[in-house]
Amino acid sequence: MPYFDAASSAPLHPVARQALLAALDEGWADPARLYRDGRRARMLLDAARETAAEAVGCRADELVFTPSGTQGVHLGVLGALAGRRRVGDRLVVSAVEHSSVLHCAEVHEASGGTVDQVGVDRLGRVDPEVFAAALTEGTALACLQSANHEVGTVQPVAEVAAACREAGVPLFVDAAQSLGRMPVPEGWSLLAASAHKWGGPPGVGLLAVRKGVRHVPPLPRDERERGRVPGFENVPAIVAAAASLRAVREQAATESDRLSALVERIRTRVPELVPDVEVVGDPARRLPHLVTFSCLYVDGEALLTELDRAGFAVSSGSSCTSSTLTPSHVLRAMGVLSEGNVRVSLPSGTTEEDVERFLGVLPGVVRGVREQLGAPTGEPGPRPTAGEEAALVLDTLGRRCPIPVIELANRIREVRAGSVVAVLSDDEAARLDVPAWCEMRGQEYLGERPAADFGADRGSAYLVRRVEE
Amino acid sequence: MPYFDAASSAPLHPVARQALLAALDEGWADPARLYRDGRRARMLLDAARETAAEAVGCRADELVFTPSGTQGVHLGVLGALAGRRRVGDRLVVSAVEHSSVLHCAEVHEASGGTVDQVGVDRLGRVDPEVFAAALTEGTALACLQSANHEVGTVQPVAEVAAACREAGVPLFVDAAQSLGRMPVPEGWSLLAASAHKWGGPPGVGLLAVRKGVRHVPPLPRDERERGRVPGFENVPAIVAAAASLRAVREQAATESDRLSALVERIRTRVPELVPDVEVVGDPARRLPHLVTFSCLYVDGEALLTELDRAGFAVSSGSSCTSSTLTPSHVLRAMGVLSEGNVRVSLPSGTTEEDVERFLGVLPGVVRGVREQLGAPTGEPGPRPTAGEEAALVLDTLGRRCPIPVIELANRIREVRAGSVVAVLSDDEAARLDVPAWCEMRGQEYLGERPAADFGADRGSAYLVRRVEE
Repeated sequence: MPYFDAASSAPLHPVARQALLAALDEGWADPARLYRDGRRARMLLDAARETAAEAVGCRADELVFTPSGTQGVHLGVLGALAGRRRVGDRLVVSAVEHSSVLHCAEVHEASGGTVDQVGVDRLGRVDPEVFAAALTEGTALACLQSANHEVGTVQPVAEVAAACREAGVPLFVDAAQSLGRMPVPEGWSLLAASAHKWGGPPGVGLLAVRKGVRHVPPLPRDERERGRVPGFENVPAIVAAAASLRAVREQAATESDRLSALVERIRTRVPELVPDVEVVGDPARRLPHLVTFSCLYVDGEALLTELDRAGFAVSSGSSCTSSTLTPSHVLRAMGVLSEGNVRVSLPSGTTEEDVERFLGVLPGVVRGVREQLGAPTGEPGPRPTAGEEAALVLDTLGRRCPIPVIELANRIREVRAGSVVAVLSDDEAARLDVPAWCEMRGQEYLGERPAADFGADRGSAYLVRRVEE
Repeated sequence: MPYFDAASSAPLHPVARQALLAALDEGWADPARLYRDGRRARMLLDAARETAAEAVGCRADELVFTPSGTQGVHLGVLGALAGRRRVGDRLVVSAVEHSSVLHCAEVHEASGGTVDQVGVDRLGRVDPEVFAAALTEGTALACLQSANHEVGTVQPVAEVAAACREAGVPLFVDAAQSLGRMPVPEGWSLLAASAHKWGGPPGVGLLAVRKGVRHVPPLPRDERERGRVPGFENVPAIVAAAASLRAVREQAATESDRLSALVERIRTRVPELVPDVEVVGDPARRLPHLVTFSCLYVDGEALLTELDRAGFAVSSGSSCTSSTLTPSHVLRAMGVLSEGNVRVSLPSGTTEEDVERFLGVLPGVVRGVREQLGAPTGEPGPRPTAGEEAALVLDTLGRRCPIPVIELANRIREVRAGSVVAVLSDDEAARLDVPAWCEMRGQEYLGERPAADFGADRGSAYLVRRVEE
């Protein structure tokens, strides 16, 4: 079964598996102990730290291992904020950071701090000048990912780092998606990553803190990991993480090129094979292994279920697949379509055949889901109603994504060109998807008004003017 | 090489190894995902949670997995304190809790809370009535370990739990040393444990929180582990932890009896084989696998080094082996000798032959270390000085444990019975070891005074009256 969700978790790399098995025998003892088994565990831990530090580009004593990438982020961000408390309480983050960074921002705000989110363009990229302008007095920390985990867009970290340096603000870089696949960006003050994203075992993250960066650990200190990460070190998993990081970095130049060509193929072919698709994210400055597209008139969960039945594991940023019932904050910040969203992220070793099979299956799967939902088929719609002056009101209250957009697409031809359709909806995804549909379809999005203006008791009205075709 | 430090970390149980290997293949994917590999990981995680909950004696939805036992303690204690903030800010802990609990207490105190440490008797046991009396108004949480990790003494958890229930105070129980070896004590509100202590892999702890106990997670929440433990779940290690917990619990009744008999043999034989030894901890209400003794006139680090050379891995609570240069807080709270301290903790499967070999080697090793240090040999000391009125002053300033006690033992006979010797020392261990030596030797300990009273510029004077022999 082709597994196309490497950005969530990569299968264990063979090198990691081998190193883990060996280290379970050699590195199970407490590395703080002085007897033979303890000294051996310590040596393995030290060697793993050297390897990881070399990959990150820092000194071994600047790097600690954490129990996960998420905890690397939490300990890094909260620790840096605590360390700079005297400077100020402003935290600057991009709007498309991983949820682990944004969760820290929420905690920071809840405890009285201020958070400034820097927006992104339609490709998901921050503007370094806009980011630099946000680094005002009292800024304790700035956070910018190396590359986005949902759409693959690579961020201008070096430019932002230069601005941070000039402003005297430390920069935290979440490198979870890029470490092991691309060079580490220059200029970070703190950096975190996650082993199971590069083929290491779960249970290992890393946090690097440059010498001189103030960091007050948010959890109680013990004698482990320089006082930054409490708890018994997971030496076998750390050894496996370091060994696989070295292995994937050695393969990275060739493997990244190969995967990048496969991703390029998906980026090009999906819009040719499937009508009404928007491929999102930066087409050039992007991760090698990840591509995301959204399919109009498609329910994300149904799409994932059908792809799973066809043997493909992918993920989605659609609201209809998440437990929170809101569309991905990344797609929202980009202002792109969220319905029918599919993220394809290729693990090392993905073959051309796997990708071709996916491209072969996808069009039929999308068509099937659209038919079930009664989506527009591309045939001419009902004829325009003549002499109409008032807007057509489509009441989709209580119906969830992608129904509001399907209704709009099916019925906009009932009004003549120049007239306005109001879509009433209480699904948050509509706020993103109605404008995105207009953009894709060349229709004019006029904005949002309370649905009460149209006699409804809840929700919003999204106004669209039909444009002559 | 016989490994006698199971209380630090147990070697991986064969069942854990087998389960880990299988789960690396079956459970590597993200359990939050809906595709086949994700659902399989979720099923494994759910099954492991059921197994662990059954072992702990709680509902599956009351138990979360943490990245270590230490984080189980940190998240449990800090979360319960935060959840009861409105009730008060008092934290009651026993004086012999694991450092992870005491580190939480330090953090709590540093942030303005109050901490009440309940002392223990010479066996390391809290008095339930004294503990109950500490549960005054405004007590947010009480902490009591199931059994002590350094001396093996089992605490009266059920009695203390009853007092807590009456006072309306939740009780946190650190069950790290007992889970998998003994029944879980009744009456806990929160409970934590650590997999690598029972033969599971490192990287897994557990935290159980009874329904109705208020708990505010101290780290940012995500959708993992009921919002209590952020970060990608380490499913393979969790599966291995649960499988081995079930396995050791099935063997526990017979294996604990067997190990307990071996420990009993060590408790009996060591004082017969080695002069000037104090076996510490409760002789009856104790962990089955753990025994601790202290050897007068011995440097703990030298002892560990020699035992390691002889092929035995043990640990020590002596100041001379720790990085902090202070004796174990547990031995200090008990008021027992800390010098030459050895903790022997037997992993499952330890043989009678292993123990006999240890008992064969120990006397020679202790004798060797004592000879190197010039310790008393048990032969008559120098004759008493006649007509002496003033105290003999032994200046051991700048010299570390066990030298002050060796000096005292070597020279106390220079004064006549009834006279006083003052030992000047700036080593914190002397505060514990001089009184402990007096207790063991039948000498009268008079107390501590500033060394300045004896003309020194630093340190303390420990006063001992020579008793007629």
